[in-house]
Amino acid sequence: MKDIYIADLANFNEGALFNGFFLVLAKQLRTTKTNKPYLNLILGDKTGQLEGRVWDPNDPRIAKDFEKGDTVKVRGSASHFDDRVQMKIDQLRVALPDEVDKTDLLPSTTCDVAGLWSQLLSFVESFTNPDLKLLLTTMLNDPELAAAYREAPAAKQLHHAWLGGLLEHVVSLLTLADRIATHYPLLDRDLLLTGVILHDLGKVRELSWETGFEYTLEGSLLGHIHIGAVLAERAIDKLPNFPPKLKTLILHMILSHHGKLEFGSPKLPMIPEALALSFLDDLDAKMQAITSEFDKCIREGKPADELTGKVWSLDQRQLLNTKRWLGEEKTGNRD
Amino acid sequence: MKDIYIADLANFNEGALFNGFFLVLAKQLRTTKTNKPYLNLILGDKTGQLEGRVWDPNDPRIAKDFEKGDTVKVRGSASHFDDRVQMKIDQLRVALPDEVDKTDLLPSTTCDVAGLWSQLLSFVESFTNPDLKLLLTTMLNDPELAAAYREAPAAKQLHHAWLGGLLEHVVSLLTLADRIATHYPLLDRDLLLTGVILHDLGKVRELSWETGFEYTLEGSLLGHIHIGAVLAERAIDKLPNFPPKLKTLILHMILSHHGKLEFGSPKLPMIPEALALSFLDDLDAKMQAITSEFDKCIREGKPADELTGKVWSLDQRQLLNTKRWLGEEKTGNRD
Amino acid sequence: MKDIYIADLANFNEGALFNGFFLVLAKQLRTTKTNKPYLNLILGDKTGQLEGRVWDPNDPRIAKDFEKGDTVKVRGSASHFDDRVQMKIDQLRVALPDEVDKTDLLPSTTCDVAGLWSQLLSFVESFTNPDLKLLLTTMLNDPELAAAYREAPAAKQLHHAWLGGLLEHVVSLLTLADRIATHYPLLDRDLLLTGVILHDLGKVRELSWETGFEYTLEGSLLGHIHIGAVLAERAIDKLPNFPPKLKTLILHMILSHHGKLEFGSPKLPMIPEALALSFLDDLDAKMQAITSEFDKCIREGKPADELTGKVWSLDQRQLLNTKRWLGEEKTGNRD
Amino acid sequence: MKDIYIADLANFNEGALFNGFFLVLAKQLRTTKTNKPYLNLILGDKTGQLEGRVWDPNDPRIAKDFEKGDTVKVRGSASHFDDRVQMKIDQLRVALPDEVDKTDLLPSTTCDVAGLWSQLLSFVESFTNPDLKLLLTTMLNDPELAAAYREAPAAKQLHHAWLGGLLEHVVSLLTLADRIATHYPLLDRDLLLTGVILHDLGKVRELSWETGFEYTLEGSLLGHIHIGAVLAERAIDKLPNFPPKLKTLILHMILSHHGKLEFGSPKLPMIPEALALSFLDDLDAKMQAITSEFDKCIREGKPADELTGKVWSLDQRQLLNTKRWLGEEKTGNRD
Amino acid sequence: MKDIYIADLANFNEGALFNGFFLVLAKQLRTTKTNKPYLNLILGDKTGQLEGRVWDPNDPRIAKDFEKGDTVKVRGSASHFDDRVQMKIDQLRVALPDEVDKTDLLPSTTCDVAGLWSQLLSFVESFTNPDLKLLLTTMLNDPELAAAYREAPAAKQLHHAWLGGLLEHVVSLLTLADRIATHYPLLDRDLLLTGVILHDLGKVRELSWETGFEYTLEGSLLGHIHIGAVLAERAIDKLPNFPPKLKTLILHMILSHHGKLEFGSPKLPMIPEALALSFLDDLDAKMQAITSEFDKCIREGKPADELTGKVWSLDQRQLLNTKRWLGEEKTGNRD
Amino acid sequence: MKDIYIADLANFNEGALFNGFFLVLAKQLRTTKTNKPYLNLILGDKTGQLEGRVWDPNDPRIAKDFEKGDTVKVRGSASHFDDRVQMKIDQLRVALPDEVDKTDLLPSTTCDVAGLWSQLLSFVESFTNPDLKLLLTTMLNDPELAAAYREAPAAKQLHHAWLGGLLEHVVSLLTLADRIATHYPLLDRDLLLTGVILHDLGKVRELSWETGFEYTLEGSLLGHIHIGAVLAERAIDKLPNFPPKLKTLILHMILSHHGKLEFGSPKLPMIPEALALSFLDDLDAKMQAITSEFDKCIREGKPADELTGKVWSLDQRQLLNTKRWLGEEKTGNRD
Repeated sequence: MKDIYIADLANFNEGALFNGFFLVLAKQLRTTKTNKPYLNLILGDKTGQLEGRVWDPNDPRIAKDFEKGDTVKVRGSASHFDDRVQMKIDQLRVALPDEVDKTDLLPSTTCDVAGLWSQLLSFVESFTNPDLKLLLTTMLNDPELAAAYREAPAAKQLHHAWLGGLLEHVVSLLTLADRIATHYPLLDRDLLLTGVILHDLGKVRELSWETGFEYTLEGSLLGHIHIGAVLAERAIDKLPNFPPKLKTLILHMILSHHGKLEFGSPKLPMIPEALALSFLDDLDAKMQAITSEFDKCIREGKPADELTGKVWSLDQRQLLNTKRWLGEEKTGNRD
Repeated sequence: MKDIYIADLANFNEGALFNGFFLVLAKQLRTTKTNKPYLNLILGDKTGQLEGRVWDPNDPRIAKDFEKGDTVKVRGSASHFDDRVQMKIDQLRVALPDEVDKTDLLPSTTCDVAGLWSQLLSFVESFTNPDLKLLLTTMLNDPELAAAYREAPAAKQLHHAWLGGLLEHVVSLLTLADRIATHYPLLDRDLLLTGVILHDLGKVRELSWETGFEYTLEGSLLGHIHIGAVLAERAIDKLPNFPPKLKTLILHMILSHHGKLEFGSPKLPMIPEALALSFLDDLDAKMQAITSEFDKCIREGKPADELTGKVWSLDQRQLLNTKRWLGEEKTGNRD
Repeated sequence: MKDIYIADLANFNEGALFNGFFLVLAKQLRTTKTNKPYLNLILGDKTGQLEGRVWDPNDPRIAKDFEKGDTVKVRGSASHFDDRVQMKIDQLRVALPDEVDKTDLLPSTTCDVAGLWSQLLSFVESFTNPDLKLLLTTMLNDPELAAAYREAPAAKQLHHAWLGGLLEHVVSLLTLADRIATHYPLLDRDLLLTGVILHDLGKVRELSWETGFEYTLEGSLLGHIHIGAVLAERAIDKLPNFPPKLKTLILHMILSHHGKLEFGSPKLPMIPEALALSFLDDLDAKMQAITSEFDKCIREGKPADELTGKVWSLDQRQLLNTKRWLGEEKTGNRD
Repeated sequence: MKDIYIADLANFNEGALFNGFFLVLAKQLRTTKTNKPYLNLILGDKTGQLEGRVWDPNDPRIAKDFEKGDTVKVRGSASHFDDRVQMKIDQLRVALPDEVDKTDLLPSTTCDVAGLWSQLLSFVESFTNPDLKLLLTTMLNDPELAAAYREAPAAKQLHHAWLGGLLEHVVSLLTLADRIATHYPLLDRDLLLTGVILHDLGKVRELSWETGFEYTLEGSLLGHIHIGAVLAERAIDKLPNFPPKLKTLILHMILSHHGKLEFGSPKLPMIPEALALSFLDDLDAKMQAITSEFDKCIREGKPADELTGKVWSLDQRQLLNTKRWLGEEKTGNRD
Repeated sequence: MKDIYIADLANFNEGALFNGFFLVLAKQLRTTKTNKPYLNLILGDKTGQLEGRVWDPNDPRIAKDFEKGDTVKVRGSASHFDDRVQMKIDQLRVALPDEVDKTDLLPSTTCDVAGLWSQLLSFVESFTNPDLKLLLTTMLNDPELAAAYREAPAAKQLHHAWLGGLLEHVVSLLTLADRIATHYPLLDRDLLLTGVILHDLGKVRELSWETGFEYTLEGSLLGHIHIGAVLAERAIDKLPNFPPKLKTLILHMILSHHGKLEFGSPKLPMIPEALALSFLDDLDAKMQAITSEFDKCIREGKPADELTGKVWSLDQRQLLNTKRWLGEEKTGNRD
Repeated sequence: MKDIYIADLANFNEGALFNGFFLVLAKQLRTTKTNKPYLNLILGDKTGQLEGRVWDPNDPRIAKDFEKGDTVKVRGSASHFDDRVQMKIDQLRVALPDEVDKTDLLPSTTCDVAGLWSQLLSFVESFTNPDLKLLLTTMLNDPELAAAYREAPAAKQLHHAWLGGLLEHVVSLLTLADRIATHYPLLDRDLLLTGVILHDLGKVRELSWETGFEYTLEGSLLGHIHIGAVLAERAIDKLPNFPPKLKTLILHMILSHHGKLEFGSPKLPMIPEALALSFLDDLDAKMQAITSEFDKCIREGKPADELTGKVWSLDQRQLLNTKRWLGEEKTGNRD
């Protein structure tokens, strides 16, 4: 485990010393106004990112051979600039392969992954449709797929952009979808839940999450919708006697889950389950984005009656944290 | 109670006699190709509408003084034209004021209105926020408002376009919203449910439902969003000490519940409860529209593997009734 | 071969007799104003469609057991109504399975299919990239796929909506693409031509063309873009050592060939070949639509200086047949 | 009255001393490259805003207790950086409550407010409709509302964004509307002028203008359209016997005055007066925005044949000052 | 002058005789259900259009040689069908060249054309800019252009779609523009009025109005914006020493007067005069369309509290005739 | 010829001396943090642009009288800042009129202009339509027009933004159009090629290219579409007996060549040649933009599997250089 995190450094006094492992997110050689060269780095871990400066890049204690994407061990002191903290770096070396855990370096779900996974499995266990149950059991028992499913983020940014985000998003959706399915008799519950579990499957190959969250080249060119539909189709085709109608419906749900052509779905939802899936997927993503934004405002110390910054996934809208704002009113009333 | 309904006439043989009360939805004097004048009527009741023809408008048994919007008693026989049934009308008179019940003439919820109403009240009863509970209790105890709330359709057409449709839509939404609220901790449950109950309140004055569902002139010029917000604001202003923050939030939910400016909301949802409300409102309306469309296909005898007609509220999309289609497959598999 | 075609009937005098095979495109029981039942049919063959009427459906010479989609043999006479011809039908029976050729009943390419097919094969033969050459040779040698490829229309309506239309469209595009590829050095010719050949492959399962051109249910729910990509992927996966980069590029071209998300492509063209393909596909479809529209104006006897009707695939635009209009000028100048 | 304004400082020589009152628009602690902390301020008054720097924040002559929004007295000298002037600040203290006039600190109309107000009143005086005249007289006699109406800006930015801007905008519109009303007989003049006076009424609560122009939280959540409609409705409801038709029409004009749903009007203009109002409101706002932009170009010394910068309220369009450009031509011709 | 007009026929009793001149707007040979051929005509004059039927086309009193676009003399009687009147035609012949005046056959301005023309000229007379005054005087003195300008409709349909409509529209705009110009000092009055006079000049060649209002082929392919700009440019180029800046500004106003690219202007308004012109042009067209719609409702006997039909040029909006609706209220109050 | 180019400086070592001619693209007086004034310049030539700094503007070796747009001779040394090179300037004087060639200072086509021009002429030579051949021969023989045509860039930025770019773009299009014309019999080849040659003619006056590429004021207000149509119309009008139909068609092609109203074409393509022209024009511009972007990536040393930056003229899309990416695979396979 790491000793010190980016988030901790925010509270360091001027000159306080630190020593820890970070991921190199950017590296640039610059010069001062007096023409002295220095290194400007962006270092990160799962708690955030920070600028760091190496004022003397030729110092022998500074490694020469590190690049963006490397994990490094860094020693230095805190320095304040424009009300923000910076790292003044005195020593830097590339980390050894097993010195640090990847989940310490990239943002990661705060939920228990094993717990989420067993929730997912028990939803599948509850299916009454034997074909869908067999399909999902088979897929989730594939060790390679299961490992990726547990680790993948749900997005590069925007919502659930952290390790385990895909699984966290799916389990949240399953709970919701289960409740919706009991409310509307026209919905086939098992089919809807199957759609939930498989809708973002393609993200395990659209995204890479080794050193930051990036689109793979395959992901950029084909997209998770197509990749996921093909993964599902292949799994289905390995099952003898899987009903062809169910296959078509599952693929349709994956293809249409973005809900609109202009959001990259090649087909609009044409069955009730696909329509419900696209609504819930959108709602859950937005609710998570709002939660993150509210957390950020609290971390940054914004007052409760100030709107958030502009939220990208809500068309640059600014939001108000209702519960927090109302909470203050109660307090205010007491006095 | 009426003896005979429009829906019954569809199964009448050529020439079979009928005798019943209907609403006049349209009335037009036409002439045949041989220049004989005749009356073309559209008659309706809660089960639908049908064309009727009076081939001799001067027959003394045919009233002269009836207009669109009147309820009439009609005697005649069934006549088939282009595979559709028509009424051949021999006698017609205006109905007396109490001869027939309005709920027999206009489409009406198939749910038990008293049951829906008590579901609504028990949701309010469950509130922990005393201000919101008091507000809603007060409003729903207003006899005039309560009567309109129980009777109003939720729309002129599109979804829940029947007497009691508003109440049915709201109770469906309350169940959904309650489930969503427990899923997302950032949602204030009582506030969200208050939004659900009040969001379409303005429909009680935007629409009239005496003789068919029409927009009132006030409704056309001001819209139910504004009308509802003003109704809520007035009710709030009568309560001493109602927290001003809660008032602003309630009004915001009403104003923003269409979710987009181009759908007539003057404000976009800026609090989590408003966002959730706009999602659920849209989902419930679409689910109901799909249900109606599926029912219509079954009534019309369409095969299970044929898509529905183009659904207006889903951008002219055609849908597939999953459960029905899969049901056939099972049957097919058994043999 | 058929003796008489729909197009011939347009020139029949009132009462002239005919006797031929047609496809039943619609069938409806109606009644006259004097309440006599009659059958209204739409009958078609490869040259067009025409209304037909059976004034006495109970005549024993009129079959009872035919439906929309059947091929029938019909005997009757021409009848003029509103300047248009109608069939007055006296006899009607269902055709025997081999009495008539499908290509006589549905519109069909006017090109020689064998010639188009050998043009297609010689383009493949010209490839220098051995992987792409092997892939296409293998696919086009699959008898089932090849038969469908030769027979499929390119669309339900709009452009190349006739048997063999897909092949005709592809061969036209290959010629174009070959010329473009030599013009722009950044284009990989073989890759572009591969995209041309495979881009609409999914139409062989999106559409059915047994009795009129219809979307299959699978086609409606999944679309030819996804279906085609999966067909291509399966063919590729059967070839050992097919370069994975080429696979990704081929799939990308299929997915992106509609050029815009709102036209149903889940990805925008991101390689030069995909961009060129989407341009040429669009251009060829529009050029063919214009050609058809111009032909129709000539058939209908419109003067050369009158614009066409509104062309659906060109945003309801009206067009002018330049060559025809200028031709008149020349003639006019000579006098 | 203030002695020295931001606009004056632009012409100060390097090192010239100043001493005056300003509003603190922003305050930030930064450090120099050599890690010395300094204060970066944005100071403003009605003539503009300027950056100021306190190089030694610990100097006892620099107040510790001031914040964004405070009015301060500042002593220092001009300093040139990148062709722009900066304030080098040596002394700074918070101003006493009455030391400086708010209209000196915030941009303010250049018109005479009393004159504008009496123009407004004489328009009302000219009404022939007694109901509308009584309504407006009553509202404008409300001292609190009248004070806010005289002081409010018409917008946060974009157009008439200064104290008194609302009144200035309304009086300009009244003159225009009066002229239009006499031109089109279908317009009800008094109704149109009533719409003009009330259309932006909600801005008195949507915006705050104590220390800069900001949206209030209520303004952000409800918007001036709703707020204004409610203010008008309340005033109307206090008048016994106000005709309900007039009330509906007035509210409709307020609700629809943005002219399009996507501009935040929940209803489109459906009466001639509402349509005319939305046109004139838009035209006047754009004319004022152009005037401001032209003034800015002249202040900045741009040549007459150079287009303006991109104007936000005109879709980032660049404009040409016709009169100025033509004026130069005359001059040019003389020589 | 014509003796009888289409509008008069609406009030004819069944069988009442008429005898008059009309324009043939459509001509079609149809058959009755009993297969008897008859002629269906649409006949029109300046007051409207009506269906007419020739039940025996072979009657020697019915001319054989007339076509769409011809003026005919017709004798027959009124016949009522579906509450609408129809002409039963007994005699029909082509009119002689001078038997009837074109202004009786096509809708025509109700204003005095000579009066409008002298208003136009006196606006030009009032110019202080000698270049603009000379340009317009020269153009309006061109007899051919002046004749077309006085006669042209302003549109094919939508607004001012009648003979003299262009002139009527321009004179209305001049009055408005003159008032606006005195209100905004940044506007160059003479330049703005020049733009008003020339903005739709191209309509004299875009439209033809000999036998109904149609687009010319040149008009369809080039549009009145381009045609008008070229006409103006040519007139300018004939004047020696016309200032090139003024020329550019005039052309810019013509090119940009539709206000948006998607409305066919190749340039957006970039000078204040062009912006004002596009606003006023749009406003005047809409006001005229509303006036026509209100007149139509009164003619059709619609009650004052019923909205109009959907108005095409106002995005299918329905409107309320304020003055008429309020008028009823007054009347109602008096009783 | 210039001795040294901007592109060469990128490889200079720190402190290496240079001495050369450049165009002044920007000039700004700034101060250092220690308040010393210095000059910041952007200097450019045909190979790119670079920042330069004069640390002592009062040095007598630094000219006082130069402005943006001037060509200057500069002596100094390379200085590295943030991994980028900067010019440290010691001497600077304004260049003499003929000391340096304009084609060395602005980016310029890499093709042989004389060769392009003769290709253009031989296309015209190949025409069979005598009217079109005469028109183009006459226009291209006009020395002033021909000189501008050879020199003009095709755009300010985006595509072919270099001297000779217009000619290069047109010749590329001619080759393409010639190939398309032989493929589609409905296309009139000579007419299409005429459209190609004239479509962007207006750029010779819309743009200026003396000192950088800028829009002229006339170009901003009228646009190259209008300007080009007028230039063509004037040339046509000078030819006696030019067929008026051809004139209309040529003007239509110029007006409609942007293909969509929102791209500034006042008319949509309504003839096959105009539609083909708008497609090819768009395709060629995009292909050139992609080529430039790929070249830039190679210059910047991006790896072959990295997408390009966001390409403005392709809606900010990122692209992959297929050939380069596939090339690496081959190499990789060899090892």
